Amino acid sequence: MKNRTLLMIPGPIEFEPAVLSALGAPTTSHTAANFIEAFGQALERLRQVLLSEDGQPFVLAGSGTLAMDAVGANLIEPGDRALVINTGYFGDRYTALLTRYGAQVTQLAAPVGGRPSLDEIEDALKRAAYKLVTLTHVDTSTGVITDVRGVADLAKRYGALSVVDGVCSVAGEELRMSAWGVDVVLTASQKAVGVPPGLALFVVSPRTLQVFKNRKTPVGNYYTDWTHWLPIMQAYEARKSSYFATPAVNLIWALNVSLGQILEEGLQTRFERHRALSAACKAGAAALGLSQVPQKPEWAANTMTALRYPAGVDGGEFLMRAAKAGVYLAGGLHPAIKNEYFRIGHMGATKIGDVLATIGAVEVALVQSDYRIELGSGVSAAQKAFL
Amino acid sequence: MKNRTLLMIPGPIEFEPAVLSALGAPTTSHTAANFIEAFGQALERLRQVLLSEDGQPFVLAGSGTLAMDAVGANLIEPGDRALVINTGYFGDRYTALLTRYGAQVTQLAAPVGGRPSLDEIEDALKRAAYKLVTLTHVDTSTGVITDVRGVADLAKRYGALSVVDGVCSVAGEELRMSAWGVDVVLTASQKAVGVPPGLALFVVSPRTLQVFKNRKTPVGNYYTDWTHWLPIMQAYEARKSSYFATPAVNLIWALNVSLGQILEEGLQTRFERHRALSAACKAGAAALGLSQVPQKPEWAANTMTALRYPAGVDGGEFLMRAAKAGVYLAGGLHPAIKNEYFRIGHMGATKIGDVLATIGAVEVALVQSDYRIELGSGVSAAQKAFL
Repeated sequence: MKNRTLLMIPGPIEFEPAVLSALGAPTTSHTAANFIEAFGQALERLRQVLLSEDGQPFVLAGSGTLAMDAVGANLIEPGDRALVINTGYFGDRYTALLTRYGAQVTQLAAPVGGRPSLDEIEDALKRAAYKLVTLTHVDTSTGVITDVRGVADLAKRYGALSVVDGVCSVAGEELRMSAWGVDVVLTASQKAVGVPPGLALFVVSPRTLQVFKNRKTPVGNYYTDWTHWLPIMQAYEARKSSYFATPAVNLIWALNVSLGQILEEGLQTRFERHRALSAACKAGAAALGLSQVPQKPEWAANTMTALRYPAGVDGGEFLMRAAKAGVYLAGGLHPAIKNEYFRIGHMGATKIGDVLATIGAVEVALVQSDYRIELGSGVSAAQKAFL
Repeated sequence: MKNRTLLMIPGPIEFEPAVLSALGAPTTSHTAANFIEAFGQALERLRQVLLSEDGQPFVLAGSGTLAMDAVGANLIEPGDRALVINTGYFGDRYTALLTRYGAQVTQLAAPVGGRPSLDEIEDALKRAAYKLVTLTHVDTSTGVITDVRGVADLAKRYGALSVVDGVCSVAGEELRMSAWGVDVVLTASQKAVGVPPGLALFVVSPRTLQVFKNRKTPVGNYYTDWTHWLPIMQAYEARKSSYFATPAVNLIWALNVSLGQILEEGLQTRFERHRALSAACKAGAAALGLSQVPQKPEWAANTMTALRYPAGVDGGEFLMRAAKAGVYLAGGLHPAIKNEYFRIGHMGATKIGDVLATIGAVEVALVQSDYRIELGSGVSAAQKAFL
């Protein structure tokens, strides 16, 4: 849309026109044949996008936090032990959430920008028997990416379920549920999945469903109780309608369109595109002398970039200047460094032109903030990295 | 939209084109100035639509059941007594939900199509001290409307909070929160509020907020905990952004458009329009010899009509025939009579032409089901009632 400020935050992001058209189309009945087909197809496609062979997909009206809640409430019984691998704000959140449902949580946290090593995680797993290990694939507050494959492997070896918060990763970062033996992946619609906010999504392994079915106590949360939702998801996938709560018809319609686009692009191509866009963005930032929040290059996500302000640059003013230069960026979220950094989202429908516009706007805002750089130096570095 | 099947179920309904356009517009940041203004305005307008002077509005991503959950989880502490006035499926649901959070629930249920009298409710209130009384304004499963004013009055007299499930009533049925002393009204977006499904909405009185603040135990549900949401709602209404979970940007944008249209029509005019459309629909049905599920005319809602099939008419085939004749109707939902009746929604954007098309389609489907009526007799009765 002409003259619109480009949305380059780590969710919500820019969405494809076909997805927005589907969202704004006249609503049909949640029991109409064409909607049943779209919902059933969306469930199948969600499983495919997660590269899961036999997982059970769920689509609920709600935010990504609701997806975290649905997984925590349904898997935790009072007294269960959970190991939370904490790489930022959303690790803190999962600790609070699991504790609410009665879990005894052990946190394994790294300093901001870091991540616990596999050795540290294995040591923790040796010391106690955990029912589940939670891991944030990409923590939106720090831009740190974790080693999902390595952690899922350890979890399996020590008899724990691996629960991956993929809110800022699914459909952008490589994530192979079946091949890597991941038990749960949860996400939200508004990031690389490419649909405006309002859907909580998750896929759970048969082993996880069995753990759920073996519960001895009722789920401590009414709305998200899988007892209600499992028959609904199974019915729609079998192309029948069934009622628990009114599905978010328009959002599900849009979800099906977006998942179709993702599969059409091809997951491998999509993962590589995200790596290339990320490399361009990070090269541009580096050329401007900006340092990343993640402490090592290999710990930095491909769906987003978290960058520290240079000394003397006021964050609030910088963000306003970037918006005036055409691009919405996000401020800090991690409480420890909230005012010291900003975040760029580059996922889903993002194209190289969007990244160049973003680096260009960052340059303008930096110059206006009296930070000395050569205009165009970031953009050209991004271009070179992309070519 | 030309050649589209008209959606005349009790939610989701037909939506206004301007609302759908807002929903499908490119997404902006949840911290952008124009979104903060739209969200703040939507909160103010929600309070106005509920005719509340001092209530606290909440807008969450989720379904109407999530709104029920948010109210139940935040107000109930283990051992609290709740009185559920049960007029259908959603009364059963509230009993299950409140029990989940530890409430000792007393149900006051009427036979299907009936409703407990104010005398019976007062008798129940005399027998025990209840923390809250829940009431379904219009139970979507039966089409029964309850006396919110009378029950709120009794609840106040006996020191209980009155909690009204207004999912199938808000912005269609007369409901005056402050004047009637109602403590909580909860609803969803996809009925008379006029926005595709995906938003849980509620407004709570200052007294209710005080009861929440006096809790001695933590809320047994993470996502809906008002501790998280209250500062967010207060921030957006004060035209600042604040983060707990990503708001459903596009749906909130659409909500603000729809609430604006509702206030522009005027609430009194809107209540009267719903009464007139309902009278036309019910007159048409009566002329065809169809009887309503509600046992008395004054117990029947204005937002929907629940009608029993004549003897010999197969429900499944009838609904398919009605859809082929251009109108989606809903089957039964109440388990006791599920296959014996169908439901028509006439709320929100519904116009008299939609009601006439609906009665016309019902006539066609009845004739095709070998039920003898004179074609046009229902439609003309509806027209007469409307004129």
